[in-house]
Amino acid sequence: MEGILAGLRLVELSAFVAAPLGGATLAALGADVIRLDPLGGGIDIGRWPLHNGRSLYWEGLNRGKRSVTLDLRSERGAGIAARIAGDAGTVLTNLPQRGPLAYERLRERRPDLVMLSIGGRADGAAAVDYTVNAGLGFPWITGPEGYDRPVNHVLPAWDVATGFLSVAGILAADRHRLLTGEGRLVRLSLAEVAVVVAGHLGLLAEAELVQQPRGRFGNHVYGTFGRDFETADRRFLMVLALTPRQWRSLAEATELPFEQILADLSDEGDRWRHRREICDLLAPWVAERSLAGVAAAFERHQVLWGPYRTFKEVLAEKPQAGRGPASALDFGEAGRALAEPAPGLGADTEAVLAGLGEDVEELRAAGIIG
Amino acid sequence: MEGILAGLRLVELSAFVAAPLGGATLAALGADVIRLDPLGGGIDIGRWPLHNGRSLYWEGLNRGKRSVTLDLRSERGAGIAARIAGDAGTVLTNLPQRGPLAYERLRERRPDLVMLSIGGRADGAAAVDYTVNAGLGFPWITGPEGYDRPVNHVLPAWDVATGFLSVAGILAADRHRLLTGEGRLVRLSLAEVAVVVAGHLGLLAEAELVQQPRGRFGNHVYGTFGRDFETADRRFLMVLALTPRQWRSLAEATELPFEQILADLSDEGDRWRHRREICDLLAPWVAERSLAGVAAAFERHQVLWGPYRTFKEVLAEKPQAGRGPASALDFGEAGRALAEPAPGLGADTEAVLAGLGEDVEELRAAGIIG
Repeated sequence: MEGILAGLRLVELSAFVAAPLGGATLAALGADVIRLDPLGGGIDIGRWPLHNGRSLYWEGLNRGKRSVTLDLRSERGAGIAARIAGDAGTVLTNLPQRGPLAYERLRERRPDLVMLSIGGRADGAAAVDYTVNAGLGFPWITGPEGYDRPVNHVLPAWDVATGFLSVAGILAADRHRLLTGEGRLVRLSLAEVAVVVAGHLGLLAEAELVQQPRGRFGNHVYGTFGRDFETADRRFLMVLALTPRQWRSLAEATELPFEQILADLSDEGDRWRHRREICDLLAPWVAERSLAGVAAAFERHQVLWGPYRTFKEVLAEKPQAGRGPASALDFGEAGRALAEPAPGLGADTEAVLAGLGEDVEELRAAGIIG
Repeated sequence: MEGILAGLRLVELSAFVAAPLGGATLAALGADVIRLDPLGGGIDIGRWPLHNGRSLYWEGLNRGKRSVTLDLRSERGAGIAARIAGDAGTVLTNLPQRGPLAYERLRERRPDLVMLSIGGRADGAAAVDYTVNAGLGFPWITGPEGYDRPVNHVLPAWDVATGFLSVAGILAADRHRLLTGEGRLVRLSLAEVAVVVAGHLGLLAEAELVQQPRGRFGNHVYGTFGRDFETADRRFLMVLALTPRQWRSLAEATELPFEQILADLSDEGDRWRHRREICDLLAPWVAERSLAGVAAAFERHQVLWGPYRTFKEVLAEKPQAGRGPASALDFGEAGRALAEPAPGLGADTEAVLAGLGEDVEELRAAGIIG
C-alpha cells in the first residue's frame, strides 16, 4: 500500500540524529529515501547502543530507507552521488556539502532542486544537541530541587525537534515547488530551533520581563499542579491537575481534605502556590497504597496520571512496542505501515546505479563502489 | 513579503503546547492561521509564566496568528466555527471535536478538508507530555548518577516534537490534496510520537536485546565522550569528542597526557569505557582556568564545546534573543520574517465574520460573540 508521500524521492547525506530522523520520518510516510554514505559507512555507523556488533542506533534511525555507498571523496564518486541527488530532486543533509554536491552545483543539474541543510548554528559554527541545550537555560531548571549543577536531557530533544521540523521544511518547499515550479535551498540550525522553541514557551520573555529567574522545581510542573509520587510497592507515578475538572477528579478520587488549604485550588496559580501543602496531603495517600490500588481509584475518577516505567518495563508490558506503526502520523489508510528494518549498508548500491544506467562492474573495478 | 506557505489557511482549535506550536510554526511560514477560542479564552489563556497578568506562555505560542472568539458551546456558535473551518479548508486541533466541528460533519461542508487531530494516546485515553515521558523510561536515565528517583524533563519535549510533526502531517496531507483533490483526517498522539522516537534512537531495541538495562550516567553522553566541567570562575561548560577529529582537537587544545590511558581513544567505544580516566585528567585542567581561558584554547583547536547559560544569561548576552526570526526554517527569502506578536484574544473576530458575510451586530446582540 502506498504512503501519503508516494512519489516523493530524496537523497539523504547525513550522520547522527536530526537528518536521519527526518529521512526516516519521510520514509515512514511513503517517500523513497536513499541514504548515501561513504564506503564502509559514515561516522555514525557504529554508534552505541550496540548488540552483537550491530549499532541499534543506526538501525533505528535508518528504517525504511535504501542505502547506497560510494567513494564520496573521489571526484567521480561525488559526481555519481550528485547524479543520484539530481535525479531524486530533493536532498536532506546535516553534513557540509562541497564540490558536485554543493547546492549551487546540484541546481545546475536540477533547477527545481529542494535541498534542506541542517547545521549546528545559523552562522555555520559547530554545535550539537548537547552544546545547544547547555547554552539555553534548560539544564539549570531541570533536575532535583536543591541540586547545584546543570542537568542535561538524555533525550536529544533538539535533534528530535529539528528532525521533525526538517520534514516540515522539505514539505513546505515541495509544496512551493508543486505550485510554482521553483526549488529552494532551506537552512535550519539546531541552535535556532532551540531559541525559537524557548521563545514560543515564553521562557525568553520571562527572562527578559520577570525579575526573579526561573527556579529549579524538580518534578513539579511549573505554574500548575503536577509531581511524582511513590507507592507502597515502590513504584513511582506522575499525577497532574492542569484544569479545574482534573483538580475535582483528584479531590474526588482521594477524598483528601484539600479544603483545609486556604486557597482557591480550582485556580492553577493557587495550586502552584500551595503545591507543597497539596503534596503533603497526597504523598502519604499514595504511599500507603499499591500502584494497582492508586490506579483503580484514579481511573474511576478520570484523574490525569501515569506510572513511571523503565525501558525494560515498557518492553515487559508491550513486547511489540518497538515494532509498531512506522510513523506516529496516521493518515487513515486501511492498514498503517509498520516499522520496516534498516537496509544493510550499501544494500541498494547496485540497483540504484543500474537504474541510472551506470556500469556497476566498471565502478566496482575502479573502487568507486564496494 | 509572502512566506513559503502563502495561500494555506487553517483553523486551530487548541490548548496548551502541541497544536498551538504547530499552528505558530505554520503561521511563521506564511500560512494564515486563525485560532478559534471560546469567549474569554480557552483553558490555557492564563497559563504561567505570567507578567503583569499577561500569560507569556499564551503569547509565545500564538505568535503570528489571528484570533477569533465565539460561544462555541452554543449550537449556533459552533455552526459559525464550522463555517470558518470549512472556508479555511484545513483544521489543526488537540481538543475533542463534536457536533458541527466533528470531522465527518466538516467534511460534508468541505469534501477536501484536511484535519489533523492530536491526542494523548492513540486509543483516545488522556495523556500529556508529563505522563507520556514518565511512561517511557527517560526519567530513569536522566539526572545525576546515583540519584534514585525519576527526573522529568522541564522542556516539554514530546509536546514540541508532536507540534513540529503535526506541521509535517498537515503538509503531507495538503500535498496529497494538491495532487489528488482528496482530503484526509490525520491522527497523531503524543504517546506514539514518544514510542516512535525511542524506537528510532535504538532504546527499545536495546531494552529488548541487551540484558543490562541502560543506566543513569548523569551528564555523560552515552557511548562516546561528552560531559560537563566547571571552570575556575564557577562557570560550567559541555565538552564533547564524538569523532576521531574532535578527539584529536581536545588532546591538542589541552596537551593533556591522554596517552597514559591504555586504550584506543580515537574509538568512541573506548572513550566511553575510559570516560572516568579522561575526566580525571580534563576536570583539573578546566578547573584551573577561567571560562575565557578555556574558550580561547578550545576555539583555537576547534574543540566541540559550549558554555552552560541560564535563561537570564542568554538574554544578557543577546538582548534580542526573543525577537529573532519567526521560524528556524530559512527558505532564503530576501529578508526572513521576524517573530510577530500574538493577537489580542478575539482581535480578529469581527473581520473574519464580516468576511464570511455574517451579521456581526446581530451575533453580538445574541451573545455569540463578545
